[in-house]
Amino acid sequence: MQQAIAVLDSGVGGLTVVKEIMRQLPREKIIYFGDTARTPYGPRSSEEVRKFTEQIVDFLYQFDPKAIVIACNTATAAALDYISAKVSIPVIGVIHPGARAAISATKTGNIGVIGTIGTISSGAYTSALHQLSPYVHVVSEACPALVPLVEQGQFRSKETTAVVKESLRGIKNSSIDCLILGCTHYPFLKDTIQEVMGKKVKLISSADETAREVSTILYDKGQLASRNESPVHQFFCSGDADMFQKIAKSWLGEQIRRTPVVWQVSKFVESF
Amino acid sequence: MQQAIAVLDSGVGGLTVVKEIMRQLPREKIIYFGDTARTPYGPRSSEEVRKFTEQIVDFLYQFDPKAIVIACNTATAAALDYISAKVSIPVIGVIHPGARAAISATKTGNIGVIGTIGTISSGAYTSALHQLSPYVHVVSEACPALVPLVEQGQFRSKETTAVVKESLRGIKNSSIDCLILGCTHYPFLKDTIQEVMGKKVKLISSADETAREVSTILYDKGQLASRNESPVHQFFCSGDADMFQKIAKSWLGEQIRRTPVVWQVSKFVESF
Repeated sequence: MQQAIAVLDSGVGGLTVVKEIMRQLPREKIIYFGDTARTPYGPRSSEEVRKFTEQIVDFLYQFDPKAIVIACNTATAAALDYISAKVSIPVIGVIHPGARAAISATKTGNIGVIGTIGTISSGAYTSALHQLSPYVHVVSEACPALVPLVEQGQFRSKETTAVVKESLRGIKNSSIDCLILGCTHYPFLKDTIQEVMGKKVKLISSADETAREVSTILYDKGQLASRNESPVHQFFCSGDADMFQKIAKSWLGEQIRRTPVVWQVSKFVESF
Repeated sequence: MQQAIAVLDSGVGGLTVVKEIMRQLPREKIIYFGDTARTPYGPRSSEEVRKFTEQIVDFLYQFDPKAIVIACNTATAAALDYISAKVSIPVIGVIHPGARAAISATKTGNIGVIGTIGTISSGAYTSALHQLSPYVHVVSEACPALVPLVEQGQFRSKETTAVVKESLRGIKNSSIDCLILGCTHYPFLKDTIQEVMGKKVKLISSADETAREVSTILYDKGQLASRNESPVHQFFCSGDADMFQKIAKSWLGEQIRRTPVVWQVSKFVESF
């Protein structure tokens, strides 16, 4: 049996990473857990986010995955090092892939980052960017109003545009040439964010970039799947399964061409 | 002492990878070997290219590098697996990074590849692309006239445009939406290639993408350099040191801000 890639997120945001893994690595089976009952993680303390992440990793570990993707910037900032030290398989976060892609893309060295309060206040992107290059200038801004829009399925509406405009007001006035979407929920709002920022600012989706780095690391370790038949993915969520399924179907529709099977694991969450 | 990244190429083409490593990872020291006395590798047999690559790896290994980058598509196709099995440090080729970037970039799934006769006839790109995804369609074309232009320093001229036009005639008539520059010499001709192919075709530089994957793999292994002072790089070539130095200075000028020190190691080549 070929092992799956386990992907976890605070809710539906990680589906943007899943969509890209499905596109870039269509031979790979995915097991997903969205902690929709406890979303958003952004405003929570890093201790709490670390605890939640560890619980989900323990749940996913029973499926014997070959790699774990922490497809949530807040959880990556709070728990990547902790989880990496705990398990013996590769654990891939979303922050370094976004940072590397921004450094590859920038021409001026002025890089913007938007994310949740947890991600931005952790300074994880600034630290990742400066670990790679001391020559980049980083402007960051927390946008706490964006995740709730996505979790409610409001990807394009007048209200969405108004909220995005207000959230990006500060960063739009800076002289950045690329902007890291430092939250896996933001690609759902990519079109609106691009409109608000203007064409000259290149948007870096940490979701797309993470899928590519999963590909790089599995290849480096000789662990890419070789199956020819389409893999059957599995989705779990801790909250309302209908809302999760609706969003998953609308976002992944082209890739999976059928309704995703979603198991709600409310007992799992209640037991904590 | 912090270890260097060793980079090798058949000539000056690998400097396009070096330039991107310097930009994306400015803390890293680089030791480069360009086999300018025996360039081009493209028309040679894979056995010969493997032997040359092994000789250069043996030479570079005395500097105790932390990773080896085979910054030449022909040598990657002929020798990557062989060298990887021989040494105990990461060996990074240029083919898989380009393939991964193309799969990430394509919207239609129609991907073009240009390279030397050796690279294209090896089928290495098609194989790397299909290893990742069975759904992409690959059109490839050998362009043997391009490397000599670069090794002579002819990056932009009427003759260059004419040769590029003629070389790309076949691939221009296909319906690709991205084109892998499957030879590290080609980024020197990027502007001309983009003009000839038109704006709608996205060019994928295996050089840029390889630098990023070096970053990913060194990060994954916890081996990124942490120095704050600028590293002092070293360049070796087997042919004419003046021509090599001239091209290296013109290409890397902004990055190194001084004339690169070039040692010619003709004895090394003569001794084979």
